Amino acid sequence: MSQSSKPLIYLDNAATSWPKPPEVAEAMDKCLKEAAANPGRGSHAMAVRSSRILFEARKRLAGLFRIANPNDIAFTLNTTHALNMAIQGYLQPGDHVIATSLEHNSIRRPLEALKRTRGIEVTYVPTDARGRLDLNRVEAAIHSRTRLLAVTHSSNLLGSILPVKEIGTLARSKGVKFLVDAAQSAGVLAIDAEAMGIDLLAFPGHKGLMGPQGTGGLYIHPELELEPLMYGGTGSKSESPEQPNVRPDRYEAGTPNTVGIAGLSAGVDFVKRETVEAIHARERKLTGQLMTGLLDIPGVEVLGPEPGEERTAIVSFVMEGVDPSETAFVLDQQFGIAVRSGFHCTPLGHESAGTTETGAVRASPGYFTSESEIVSFIEAVREIGKALRV
Amino acid sequence: MSQSSKPLIYLDNAATSWPKPPEVAEAMDKCLKEAAANPGRGSHAMAVRSSRILFEARKRLAGLFRIANPNDIAFTLNTTHALNMAIQGYLQPGDHVIATSLEHNSIRRPLEALKRTRGIEVTYVPTDARGRLDLNRVEAAIHSRTRLLAVTHSSNLLGSILPVKEIGTLARSKGVKFLVDAAQSAGVLAIDAEAMGIDLLAFPGHKGLMGPQGTGGLYIHPELELEPLMYGGTGSKSESPEQPNVRPDRYEAGTPNTVGIAGLSAGVDFVKRETVEAIHARERKLTGQLMTGLLDIPGVEVLGPEPGEERTAIVSFVMEGVDPSETAFVLDQQFGIAVRSGFHCTPLGHESAGTTETGAVRASPGYFTSESEIVSFIEAVREIGKALRV
Repeated sequence: MSQSSKPLIYLDNAATSWPKPPEVAEAMDKCLKEAAANPGRGSHAMAVRSSRILFEARKRLAGLFRIANPNDIAFTLNTTHALNMAIQGYLQPGDHVIATSLEHNSIRRPLEALKRTRGIEVTYVPTDARGRLDLNRVEAAIHSRTRLLAVTHSSNLLGSILPVKEIGTLARSKGVKFLVDAAQSAGVLAIDAEAMGIDLLAFPGHKGLMGPQGTGGLYIHPELELEPLMYGGTGSKSESPEQPNVRPDRYEAGTPNTVGIAGLSAGVDFVKRETVEAIHARERKLTGQLMTGLLDIPGVEVLGPEPGEERTAIVSFVMEGVDPSETAFVLDQQFGIAVRSGFHCTPLGHESAGTTETGAVRASPGYFTSESEIVSFIEAVREIGKALRV
Repeated sequence: MSQSSKPLIYLDNAATSWPKPPEVAEAMDKCLKEAAANPGRGSHAMAVRSSRILFEARKRLAGLFRIANPNDIAFTLNTTHALNMAIQGYLQPGDHVIATSLEHNSIRRPLEALKRTRGIEVTYVPTDARGRLDLNRVEAAIHSRTRLLAVTHSSNLLGSILPVKEIGTLARSKGVKFLVDAAQSAGVLAIDAEAMGIDLLAFPGHKGLMGPQGTGGLYIHPELELEPLMYGGTGSKSESPEQPNVRPDRYEAGTPNTVGIAGLSAGVDFVKRETVEAIHARERKLTGQLMTGLLDIPGVEVLGPEPGEERTAIVSFVMEGVDPSETAFVLDQQFGIAVRSGFHCTPLGHESAGTTETGAVRASPGYFTSESEIVSFIEAVREIGKALRV
């Protein structure tokens, strides 16, 4: 039974990257055993070590994303937490928001909730089936009450890359704040918060940044103030009943995930040493191989950008006459290959791609995937196609 | 310099317990290397293993707290997250809440924020200087708009234990919901959610339950519905723009901290094997030794319950003529002893205790603290008293 053994081939990196660089586990173990006191709460040596771990992680992330002040980054449980902090903390009753049809439920569901609870208005600008966004349509949707553009950097279904810099320039020219969901881009695409005009950047720790689950963060432009999503102890101004204004404390109530952040810090350090460019180049190579192989199989359609066009390492596909869930099931059970099937938390993305009825199989290689694993995966899909096509 | 070496004596367990049982680090390492895919999102073997880790942790916690359905427990980043989920998710404009003067800022700050944003009303029933709560005062504060009693199980400043069962009975008889902050009690005091009439139980993973930071949870009574604090992907009903109703998904948007929860699960297992009773007995013994020793030092006043009265392993004290921060500083720098000084995120608690001006030094032994460490600590405080008293 593959249930009880390690999967041979892991192609679900868009959900959580795996494996991690060995130094991630080492950093977490060391932190748990030597430095996991309460940062910012005590002045004793171990608490100081904890504080240093957090600050070092912030510095590394600030360097990676070209953020001037590390304290403008708040750590969160995951990207969803960061996006909720941004969306719920910024939007006021009556505000208008523009997003795209490619948004993950982590943007769409908070926006839909605020339609109900705060009477906000939302426009989802549709992309084409390849995941391309027409900037003119975005601009045309902006009106006097538009206060936020909320856009994914790369689609978790199609792998398409949105023109973040151009959208940021547009947002800035219109006086609209710009929120970027870097769930699929942090660590694999260059991000320059300042140059891209990003006011709010939500990122996961456990995907391209190679850290463990339970980590993520939100960059908040220094001139932007959010209402906190959570209030509580911060170690600072503890005599006040009000949440303090000092960053990052204002946005980090309660004890942080110091051990997880130690792992994230090691992951970011790995990414910076390897370089984002080299990681992206490696993933592009694997993704090209994957697409070429899949498109050679009769009846397979790959969603998203055409071969040769830019994309992240996400290849979703459908196979004529074969149910995606069954494909994923057989890949797991018979071949020990981990992929994801279904709707990928992006219903409008499936509308754009024309796969609302069926869902899709998503294969997402990572930096540690090998060429021979891709070959084995292609072979497996080919066999499944032969065996299962009705 | 003690800054760069491990503290010799760790008496800050009320902030984060340390060290952890060895199986906690082992479980985390194993999870990171073998099972840290996305629980509930993929059907592949590694995702199934992740789901099982979460469910096993939920089962263990449900057993510990006598909760019938493990899915009524939602995992959170920390206790603060759990308390915000409860408070913000339950209270409506105009509601009245009763809390005590011993509440941590993780209850007080969300309540103060909702006074501002939702016009709720809050009554903080003061305890006496020893941390005793008069139930008649609580009952007298209940009126027609009272919808929530929010009470800490044990004061993080005084160590006093509040009569949770009696408060729960009162709340139930008045039709008021009951929220318990188990930050200082989970794992060291018996908690029976049903018998104690608890509707909402917020607990940390990183204190008495011996897990890592970045973990915690909220039990939500099956008949109680909360508006989620965060909306996003849940792996369930991903085609819907609305947050699903199924538990625990509804309250766990985004990727969970699987690795941290694996560690928490091992910690809870340790607690259950040792038994809460044995852990509390051990901590009582150390706490008694600590109090006896401190009270023998000229000019030392211990806050909270009298010697012999029940308390958790929290001993806060002031020393006549000596600044608490300086005491903590010297303990750390000269003696390698980790304690906490200051205001402990509970301003009203300091009013109750009469230490609003000075703060206090808090020493909190844990299950792994030894008698000889307590002896060394007492000796150090005695020396500091001699050297620093003005």
